[in-house]
Amino acid sequence: MGGVSPRLDDLPLRDDLRGKTPYGAPQESVPVALNVNENTHPVPQEVADDILDSVAVALREVNRYPDREFVELREAFADYLGHGLVRDQLWAANGSNEVLQHVMQAFGGPGRTVFGFAPTYSMYPLLASATGATWVAGERAHDFTLTPQSAAEQVAEADPDIVLLCSPNNPTGTPLPIDVIDAVYEASRGVVIVDEAYWEFAPRDQRSALTLLHERPRLAVSRTMSKAFAFAGARVGYLAADPVFIDALRLVRLPYHLSSLTQAAALGALRHADTMLAMVDDIVAQRDRIGATLSALGYEPYESWSNFVLFGGVADPQATWRALLERGVLIRDVGLPGTLRVSAGTEEETTSFLDSLASLGSQS
Amino acid sequence: MGGVSPRLDDLPLRDDLRGKTPYGAPQESVPVALNVNENTHPVPQEVADDILDSVAVALREVNRYPDREFVELREAFADYLGHGLVRDQLWAANGSNEVLQHVMQAFGGPGRTVFGFAPTYSMYPLLASATGATWVAGERAHDFTLTPQSAAEQVAEADPDIVLLCSPNNPTGTPLPIDVIDAVYEASRGVVIVDEAYWEFAPRDQRSALTLLHERPRLAVSRTMSKAFAFAGARVGYLAADPVFIDALRLVRLPYHLSSLTQAAALGALRHADTMLAMVDDIVAQRDRIGATLSALGYEPYESWSNFVLFGGVADPQATWRALLERGVLIRDVGLPGTLRVSAGTEEETTSFLDSLASLGSQS
Repeated sequence: MGGVSPRLDDLPLRDDLRGKTPYGAPQESVPVALNVNENTHPVPQEVADDILDSVAVALREVNRYPDREFVELREAFADYLGHGLVRDQLWAANGSNEVLQHVMQAFGGPGRTVFGFAPTYSMYPLLASATGATWVAGERAHDFTLTPQSAAEQVAEADPDIVLLCSPNNPTGTPLPIDVIDAVYEASRGVVIVDEAYWEFAPRDQRSALTLLHERPRLAVSRTMSKAFAFAGARVGYLAADPVFIDALRLVRLPYHLSSLTQAAALGALRHADTMLAMVDDIVAQRDRIGATLSALGYEPYESWSNFVLFGGVADPQATWRALLERGVLIRDVGLPGTLRVSAGTEEETTSFLDSLASLGSQS
Repeated sequence: MGGVSPRLDDLPLRDDLRGKTPYGAPQESVPVALNVNENTHPVPQEVADDILDSVAVALREVNRYPDREFVELREAFADYLGHGLVRDQLWAANGSNEVLQHVMQAFGGPGRTVFGFAPTYSMYPLLASATGATWVAGERAHDFTLTPQSAAEQVAEADPDIVLLCSPNNPTGTPLPIDVIDAVYEASRGVVIVDEAYWEFAPRDQRSALTLLHERPRLAVSRTMSKAFAFAGARVGYLAADPVFIDALRLVRLPYHLSSLTQAAALGALRHADTMLAMVDDIVAQRDRIGATLSALGYEPYESWSNFVLFGGVADPQATWRALLERGVLIRDVGLPGTLRVSAGTEEETTSFLDSLASLGSQS
């Protein structure tokens, strides 16, 4: 190379990766970070202490490979989810992205298609194309909602191998009625994945897609500990489905993909599900406060069942985003014209965001 | 489904996965487990305590996503490896299997070929085919060694996109002379990965492939903390290469693939590299004792630079394997005719293995 630094294009990179840039929101250090839908409440000290005790025990045997089948953890997820689920119906991986990657590897790949209703979670097309599958985007109504009839017709028409339904939807927060899920399942021959990453923030009296799992072996429901359990740093996603669906994921996972420390930490947090879910109520209250205040300020917040709010009526999203950042508040421009997205933080963080936005002047 | 349990074949599984079974050694609970090349020495208590302190700090912010670029950890790996390596030349993932998966995703995939000299690490063909690439197996001499000329000729002939060189080789323990690596690099247009998972068990005066990285942007060296660092349960693999090679891996990794707890635990262990590597000397002593004793018993151990010994001259490997298991000693039949493989354990575990084998009667 004669002292000249090589460039990425000098390497025999796959053709479909040339010119691409890595996925990811900017990692900026700001006083109020409400950009990636984290749970901004730290794990309570008594829970952290108990998690640490579990990790200490796991460290005694960290020289050995972890339980490849993470039996205890699957048992704990089954108990947490309820609905009569048992261990053999559970799966887990390093974040729900890896759970979805396993689904793509088992049912997607070259020559296969993955379908979702845009706009939706921006990782879906990336996860699909990373396994060589083709991403096909369906459409939503102008307010991002879906009806059973429209959803089923689009799925029947596209005839995909995998359908990804985000419930509630990211980045819009939109609720997904359970009859839409049922209609999509009936209209498809492929697997149907309901991504309930934000489900714990939905109204408690609503039915999770978990209630549809019985006798629907092509259906799976994915969840994450990142949001409700304030565990984004620990990278724990999980999925419930028929035991044969789990067997399919077992064919593609890397052996020992889930470390013994991750298993121990997740088990520790799950023992305190009640404490962790109490934070969810606080976050839901802040989310609803955001919605009400945004309306009063003349913005147009969309209905949200998640821990974030997408709001329209933003004349110049980039200018507003930058003005907030200058005030120490980081939110997200998800690329939908005239909108911005904000995560519900603690009461104090939420106040900072709302006050900063108000200081920019009313939009009405 | 009318109450009938669905079968895996009822699901729209990828065609190339039909009929397959998950990878993995049996997870048997036995007094002396020497089957998967673990480091059987637990992490010393003072190291475990320090790791736990790091994890405790990470838990304070576990509600936030981890550093996606794991900057501190890459810095620590660069320091540990030496050879003038800097942070931008380092990568890490959940086990070296995931590191290699990233390599496959960046440079392999459909229509591409991955080459290795059989017999070698059994995950290589699985990792290749999981991304749709074709595995091509080269040949070794009858004693599993390779010469620069033979290796280069085979690589030039196969013209692969990725070459995987296991140094020392698993499951045979065979040293890989550094001039073979150099010759393979010169003979190839693809990327060349030297898998040094067991390198710390090689003689200290030998040159690692790390010394070849300068001005070879298609070369990468992967390592793991599973073996020398007794960290199999924590799942930490890493890789050193040119910064542009690292950029390629960044295109395919899942965002936030490395948890903050994993980063903290690895950083804690790396702070005690000297203590951890002291265990390596004990293990090397037991490995050499296994070799000498096996010879005395009439078996034919192969030269090993790793923490395990492959030995030939076994009349009936399955019978010997089973007889050892009945005596509480689990070793591995890796499928090479007339051989078995055993990991070097503690002095006590090694004695159990050697005494049990001796009790089966001499092979000479």
